[in-house]
Amino acid sequence: MKLVYEGKTKTVFELEDGNYLLKFKDDVTGEDGVFDPGANTVGLTIEGAGKTGLRLTKYFFELLEQKGIPTHFVNASIEDTTMTVKPAQMFGNGLEVICRYRAVGSFLRRYGMYAEEGQELDGFVEVTLKDDVRQDPPISEDALAMLGILSHDEYQRLKELTREIGSIIKADLEKKGIDLYDIKLEFGRAGDNKEITLIDEISGGNMRAYKNGDYIEPLKLGELILSE
Amino acid sequence: MKLVYEGKTKTVFELEDGNYLLKFKDDVTGEDGVFDPGANTVGLTIEGAGKTGLRLTKYFFELLEQKGIPTHFVNASIEDTTMTVKPAQMFGNGLEVICRYRAVGSFLRRYGMYAEEGQELDGFVEVTLKDDVRQDPPISEDALAMLGILSHDEYQRLKELTREIGSIIKADLEKKGIDLYDIKLEFGRAGDNKEITLIDEISGGNMRAYKNGDYIEPLKLGELILSE
Repeated sequence: MKLVYEGKTKTVFELEDGNYLLKFKDDVTGEDGVFDPGANTVGLTIEGAGKTGLRLTKYFFELLEQKGIPTHFVNASIEDTTMTVKPAQMFGNGLEVICRYRAVGSFLRRYGMYAEEGQELDGFVEVTLKDDVRQDPPISEDALAMLGILSHDEYQRLKELTREIGSIIKADLEKKGIDLYDIKLEFGRAGDNKEITLIDEISGGNMRAYKNGDYIEPLKLGELILSE
Repeated sequence: MKLVYEGKTKTVFELEDGNYLLKFKDDVTGEDGVFDPGANTVGLTIEGAGKTGLRLTKYFFELLEQKGIPTHFVNASIEDTTMTVKPAQMFGNGLEVICRYRAVGSFLRRYGMYAEEGQELDGFVEVTLKDDVRQDPPISEDALAMLGILSHDEYQRLKELTREIGSIIKADLEKKGIDLYDIKLEFGRAGDNKEITLIDEISGGNMRAYKNGDYIEPLKLGELILSE
């Protein structure tokens, strides 16, 4: 088992069978000691954050696999706070794909001239580059293709998968009385046919969720979803 | 003749026949007394800037009309520093459409992880919102359609026209030994059939142009193009 990457919230090891092992940390992103899933710096350490993140990720990946969504998930060990995943090739240095059902966050900061806070957005999909230095800029289909990051066909598949995944998770949360406002996903190319595959994790830090109009803090969201 | 809008670099009057009169000012955008066409504030006043801008606009609009591009141009009076234009409906509160041949400016600031300064971009088109408060954010085709600013069909037409206009102007500058790096255009809906039509102006402040690898300052560009 070889250490290949030390991330902000996860450590990545390569396994001998070619799969990878992700070790979830208790470090969460944020600023000045406040948990902020959109931040690019580690803001604080919360005991149990890694375990809750992994349990939620396992829950959602198993749900998505059942619905036929290709993911990199192989299995998870909650005790060890690790998840085994299939190898996948990133798009460039990494993209984030966001599916939005309500106007909040960076969408509102950019398009506030045309949208009110909380306005419905009908599963709108947008892509941002993972680039801390340049504050994760949004990027269009044409720019992704021109810069050789993603082909037009891959973009269409990515968008379709994102909307499917978003609607599966939204419906699941709705059963628990929770409203999904937006969700952030990562994809890669996996297998011999380079199939577009959901990678990384899906936990409280990947989404904004509300209950009765109140924002649910990421760890609290984990408890709400997993308690049922 | 009725004053309808006092802009940063132009004043707009409504004429009795339904057309509009644009009066070009000597005020140019910039910061701290330095001319910067990308800035959102009036930075300084340069005597003759309005006249040069109008002469260039007339030159380019007549060139484009000859090539069959729909524009709002009717005629211009260089003496009065005014241009008469057909009425056009803006998209939302206004869009800027940028055609890029080389990676410079905001493109490089956003996508510098994947592009080197001056790299060729093959007429890449992107749209930004005119929104000083939010620093003119880039916006995708899907977001424009969702927010009711532009339909998908209109977006495709806008992109096609932008590439046509860009290549006409690029070819014209090449004859004078000038390299066009990028150009910023504005469009609106004009006439009974709401045809997508080039509006506003095309002057030195709308483009980045280079000669022998050196950037040409907007007023100098006017002189270079109009002297032949």
